[in-house]
Amino acid sequence: MKIVALAGGVGGAKLAHGLAQILEPGELTTIVNTGDDFEHLGFYICPDLDTVCYTLAGLANPETGWGRSDETWNVMENLEKLGGPSWFRLGDQDMATHLERTRRLRVGEPLSQITKAFCEAWGVKHAVLPMSDSPVRTMVNADDGELAFQEYFVHRRCEPRVKGFRFDGVEGAEPAPGVKEALDLADTVIICPSNPWVSIDPILEILRPPFAQFDGAKSVIAVSPIIGGQTVKGPAAKMYRELGIEPSAFAVANHYRGLLSGFVFDRRDAQLVENIKGLNMRAYVTNTLMECLDDRKQLAMEVLNFIGEVL
Amino acid sequence: MKIVALAGGVGGAKLAHGLAQILEPGELTTIVNTGDDFEHLGFYICPDLDTVCYTLAGLANPETGWGRSDETWNVMENLEKLGGPSWFRLGDQDMATHLERTRRLRVGEPLSQITKAFCEAWGVKHAVLPMSDSPVRTMVNADDGELAFQEYFVHRRCEPRVKGFRFDGVEGAEPAPGVKEALDLADTVIICPSNPWVSIDPILEILRPPFAQFDGAKSVIAVSPIIGGQTVKGPAAKMYRELGIEPSAFAVANHYRGLLSGFVFDRRDAQLVENIKGLNMRAYVTNTLMECLDDRKQLAMEVLNFIGEVL
Repeated sequence: MKIVALAGGVGGAKLAHGLAQILEPGELTTIVNTGDDFEHLGFYICPDLDTVCYTLAGLANPETGWGRSDETWNVMENLEKLGGPSWFRLGDQDMATHLERTRRLRVGEPLSQITKAFCEAWGVKHAVLPMSDSPVRTMVNADDGELAFQEYFVHRRCEPRVKGFRFDGVEGAEPAPGVKEALDLADTVIICPSNPWVSIDPILEILRPPFAQFDGAKSVIAVSPIIGGQTVKGPAAKMYRELGIEPSAFAVANHYRGLLSGFVFDRRDAQLVENIKGLNMRAYVTNTLMECLDDRKQLAMEVLNFIGEVL
Repeated sequence: MKIVALAGGVGGAKLAHGLAQILEPGELTTIVNTGDDFEHLGFYICPDLDTVCYTLAGLANPETGWGRSDETWNVMENLEKLGGPSWFRLGDQDMATHLERTRRLRVGEPLSQITKAFCEAWGVKHAVLPMSDSPVRTMVNADDGELAFQEYFVHRRCEPRVKGFRFDGVEGAEPAPGVKEALDLADTVIICPSNPWVSIDPILEILRPPFAQFDGAKSVIAVSPIIGGQTVKGPAAKMYRELGIEPSAFAVANHYRGLLSGFVFDRRDAQLVENIKGLNMRAYVTNTLMECLDDRKQLAMEVLNFIGEVL
């Protein structure tokens, strides 16, 4: 079986981790959103890519879901004493990632190659690819103007009301080397439970033009990031509301309408099953909340089994 | 009494620290070499300036003389795991200094102003000034070509044989704001026991053109960094040898000939007293090795007392 997983940050990383515990290296490629990448303190920071890699490596902080476990904050604490900007928290171990990535980018190494080298160093055996080696920047059209994603997400704590999104640079951006090949070989694409607006849509925007076959020839399964009308983490539900859509598993399925063969969502939303089937996709109801490592593997197993029903 | 101290790294910082324990803030200004500043890993690093500031703040590592006490190395360790360059060791606390300085330089804040802000944050009460806000780069003319100073000093561990030095950018560089004023007000200039070739000469090159009065009107006292033909730290003695000069306190006094009213050197070199006096300067012999905090204060006290004899 060849699987491509599309992932954003924490939720996506958890399911990718579950899949990696079942599938052999070579059976799974995770393509990660880079729309929330940004430059800060002279570092080129890739939050989603790092979350996915740290999670697959078993290095992620289990409490936050992002950043490193057993992290220290000595640089940040001293930076604050000097009056430096501290709104984006960078741990010491994590900072090494940004430092070395930035150094390599400056000497011309592409992001996909850097990610491969880092995965090797961290012992990640399953392929992880940035969606593109070219910068694409998710811009949030908010009630008080357009904001760069991390400005909205971290600095402003998702408080501004959103009106829409724009992926700056997406027109000229090509999928990273290996993305097309992985999709060509894949039996199934799994859209992980990540934010549809700002984690998955940027990837789909990148993939669509060269992968027209993506819409029909392969089975595509999505897992809902919305459970009981709420997001486990992050602003997806708030975004749906502000865009005038009731946040629900149905809203997510409808978001991906036309693309999906199957949709996986939580027991708490079982009442939506007929509405979701009405979107011309198969539906699978289970526990989708990944609270522990076993939950990740269990959900991954069920998603993989569901593929058999969909194909 | 108004004193200006000229200092490079560890030895200079120790004497400046001794002076700061005796003199009131406002009585002492330390002007620091920036010729060994360099850019590394995207950071703008000022080794001598940081050594002086950390030492005056009581934050310096007492074992190495440079870097921070109670330092951690989490960024560096993780950088090495990713294959990043590790020849220049940057501790976590120290890295915050470079990070914030680089950020401020990028937004246009001059080095002297940044240094002032950092000194305030660290509780340094005596003025510390970089010799210039403009980049001046000490280049080492070595047997296998010209090397940037840190390349020679840290990466190549002072192994290449030196043939001379060049201070790139010195012609166009102005003394930093406050340097001229401090010199105008100073009764005495103390040249700290720093490397004459690569720590003090760059400062003198910067100061000379606008401060012609420097040569005669004020008393200038130097403390020898060479004891018993050897340097306490660093390559000064090796440099003298490679340039065909026998390394000694006399060689140092001769280096500053014409500039000095008085010269302070170690008991172990007492036999050189007549030769040094023959250079038309007063001589003062004492213990110049600063092994503990008390030694710094003791030497500073003796140097200040010596000023009375010289004036």
